[in-house]
Amino acid sequence: MRAIHKGPRAERGDLAGKILAAARASFAMHGFAGTSLRRVAREAGVDQALVHYYFTDKSTLLEACLQPPPGFLEEVEAVAGEPLERRGAAMVRLLVASWDDPTRGSILHAAIQTAAHEPRARERLRAILAERIVGAVAAELGEEATVRAVLCATQMVGLAIVRSVWRLEPLASLPNEAVVRLIAPTIQHYLAGDLGAPLDERGATAPLGPT
Amino acid sequence: MRAIHKGPRAERGDLAGKILAAARASFAMHGFAGTSLRRVAREAGVDQALVHYYFTDKSTLLEACLQPPPGFLEEVEAVAGEPLERRGAAMVRLLVASWDDPTRGSILHAAIQTAAHEPRARERLRAILAERIVGAVAAELGEEATVRAVLCATQMVGLAIVRSVWRLEPLASLPNEAVVRLIAPTIQHYLAGDLGAPLDERGATAPLGPT
Repeated sequence: MRAIHKGPRAERGDLAGKILAAARASFAMHGFAGTSLRRVAREAGVDQALVHYYFTDKSTLLEACLQPPPGFLEEVEAVAGEPLERRGAAMVRLLVASWDDPTRGSILHAAIQTAAHEPRARERLRAILAERIVGAVAAELGEEATVRAVLCATQMVGLAIVRSVWRLEPLASLPNEAVVRLIAPTIQHYLAGDLGAPLDERGATAPLGPT
Repeated sequence: MRAIHKGPRAERGDLAGKILAAARASFAMHGFAGTSLRRVAREAGVDQALVHYYFTDKSTLLEACLQPPPGFLEEVEAVAGEPLERRGAAMVRLLVASWDDPTRGSILHAAIQTAAHEPRARERLRAILAERIVGAVAAELGEEATVRAVLCATQMVGLAIVRSVWRLEPLASLPNEAVVRLIAPTIQHYLAGDLGAPLDERGATAPLGPT
């Protein structure tokens, strides 16, 4: 990240942003080995020397591409600190709003695509998810905190992929607030519900609805 | 699929299987454009002519790679037909057992990796998921059948990715039956619960636990 603080601020934001956008698309499609700094520079419409100037090398560029969107982790921490009874809805609302935001959505989209097939990216995304996001959610929970936070992650990651990457209907077209209503009870259950509801001897589960 | 029915059965199974395994790994890592039949043949240890003989061309080979594991869709239909009160557990149990199976797990893993960054594969996987898997689950449900089935898909896909691809702990190391106990209540809720539980005016959700 050190490398992107070079250069005059206004110009740096513009050109570094173009380079990052081109690099994200390339890592997502072609992985680390299939990405060349020359092609990233061409796609970004800048000289290749500028890519080296801002990002030093390909590893540093990948690292920069996988940084969470600006402010995102702080907002995760904020919703993880919401009063428990409305925390599930707040978490889902943050996720769907982030995917809708052009900048954040494209960063999250590229990170998931890249991590799917690029082991370096997967390790990095796993570390961010485990330490920063699961960590933030777990910090506000009591017993079984980490398993609760990881269960939340399964539902949130699956929601993002099925709705926003694969765009399965009718979920893709539902308004965000309808999605919050459908998914928040699950997150709420993982945060605060009874995880030990036993399966009975026939394999049936205890009913979970608000009945 | 027509193309793989050529050749003596025993030899076909062996060589076609080797070609498919090599092709799956290549599509997952390099996408459609980055996969060459020459390299697939080399990785499989067969002559390139044999790849053409069994699979005709690269599109047909990708199509074959994305076929669900043998018997998988039939088992999805079977668990979707389980009595409703134990259907959630049966569905989660099928998923985790399928990921544990070396053949099935590698096919599912490669399909998810390939679909993440290869648009052709994403369309194909989306079609299989929407028509065959969501369709099978929805066929056995009443009102709101499709949205219920797609909600199940969000939880199942997220479980597979977070536990079996990203391997987040403690979920990755939990025994399968513990995972079934943790996730089945959610699937059961999506299959048969009250999806309309309103958020109250402060954004709180009705409690979902079996309390």
